[in-house]
Amino acid sequence: MRLRNKPWAKEELAKYPEIVVQRPDLHKGKWQELFGNCHPIHIEVGTGKGQFLTGMAQQYPNVNFIGIEKYETVLLTALERAKSLKLPNLRFLNEDVIDLLQFFETDDLSRVYINFTDPWPKNRHEKRRLTYKDFLALYEQLLKSDGEIHFKTDNQGLFEYSLESFSRFGLIIKNVSLNLHKSQFEGNIMTEYEEKFSKKGMRIYRCEASFKEK
Amino acid sequence: MRLRNKPWAKEELAKYPEIVVQRPDLHKGKWQELFGNCHPIHIEVGTGKGQFLTGMAQQYPNVNFIGIEKYETVLLTALERAKSLKLPNLRFLNEDVIDLLQFFETDDLSRVYINFTDPWPKNRHEKRRLTYKDFLALYEQLLKSDGEIHFKTDNQGLFEYSLESFSRFGLIIKNVSLNLHKSQFEGNIMTEYEEKFSKKGMRIYRCEASFKEK
Repeated sequence: MRLRNKPWAKEELAKYPEIVVQRPDLHKGKWQELFGNCHPIHIEVGTGKGQFLTGMAQQYPNVNFIGIEKYETVLLTALERAKSLKLPNLRFLNEDVIDLLQFFETDDLSRVYINFTDPWPKNRHEKRRLTYKDFLALYEQLLKSDGEIHFKTDNQGLFEYSLESFSRFGLIIKNVSLNLHKSQFEGNIMTEYEEKFSKKGMRIYRCEASFKEK
Repeated sequence: MRLRNKPWAKEELAKYPEIVVQRPDLHKGKWQELFGNCHPIHIEVGTGKGQFLTGMAQQYPNVNFIGIEKYETVLLTALERAKSLKLPNLRFLNEDVIDLLQFFETDDLSRVYINFTDPWPKNRHEKRRLTYKDFLALYEQLLKSDGEIHFKTDNQGLFEYSLESFSRFGLIIKNVSLNLHKSQFEGNIMTEYEEKFSKKGMRIYRCEASFKEK
């Protein structure tokens, strides 16, 4: 994703603290207080322009969604979407996924979404992939024991890598789809990338992974 | 695979006991004596017309290969191939995979190949798929602890199913290829099906699975 420098972006995000949470560390272990309910919390790591999470928040009012995105210029688009919809169950954090432990407590989360994340195709960048074992260890720490990872990508190499990474980490892989838009899967909410790539006829790969069998 | 009834096929196979082993139960735990060496043993379940295993036996003279195929008419083609090549490291069994424990002892095997097996797409036929958990339990019993399953198919649904089945069984999945003939994978020996399907431009899916991490 090519990013232009917009120094005013961070200031703009700060104007809407009811959508872009400004001090997420203060809510660690207390997110349900912020949402004012006991609904499960699903996060999206690398939420981008927020189309997926906004769609999910509309479709599932009984789930609290938090999107994490480190690029403020991208998150501005997500903010615009969210402003017009006024969804009580949606928040964004302008933070880096690597810092997740600062914002969430063990067992805080029920689900982690990883959608169309940067594939970092070079071997020497493996550690940056959001399905690398160190990130899986992070998700494991924060997810409830029956929590799940839901993963989508158009990138064949990243999907191959991620299946292996999940498997080596001891995750149980399920609901694999090697061509999501030609599958029986229902209720799919598309990301911006997904719309673009699937229009070009490219395959979308998807799977779920959990730390124990249900 | 459509099979015509050829009652003479079984008799024909019996004429070449040096290739089609007639009483495999007598060699249980003693296969290396039959081969006259200490090389590892790789089996192929559902070996069909034997193109894959014949190719492998030529390429890897230091491995003993045994192909298991219950349909005698199909195995006749494999016999024809093998007769002309006179490969000392190749044998076939005209047997059903379900009976593997009658022919092999714990730790007899180093590898199991499953290539283009019948996908049995209907849910009620799940138990017949050669990647169903009961078959995985069979392979686990017979494989050495560092043994591997190597799996190829053109069938997307079977591949999705098998990834999940491997994962749920606790197998570690590696070297996943979602488009084998466009991958970096070297030394691939094609089966008859693989040749036919890949010529049509269809994707070939492949992965390896092991019972412990190496």
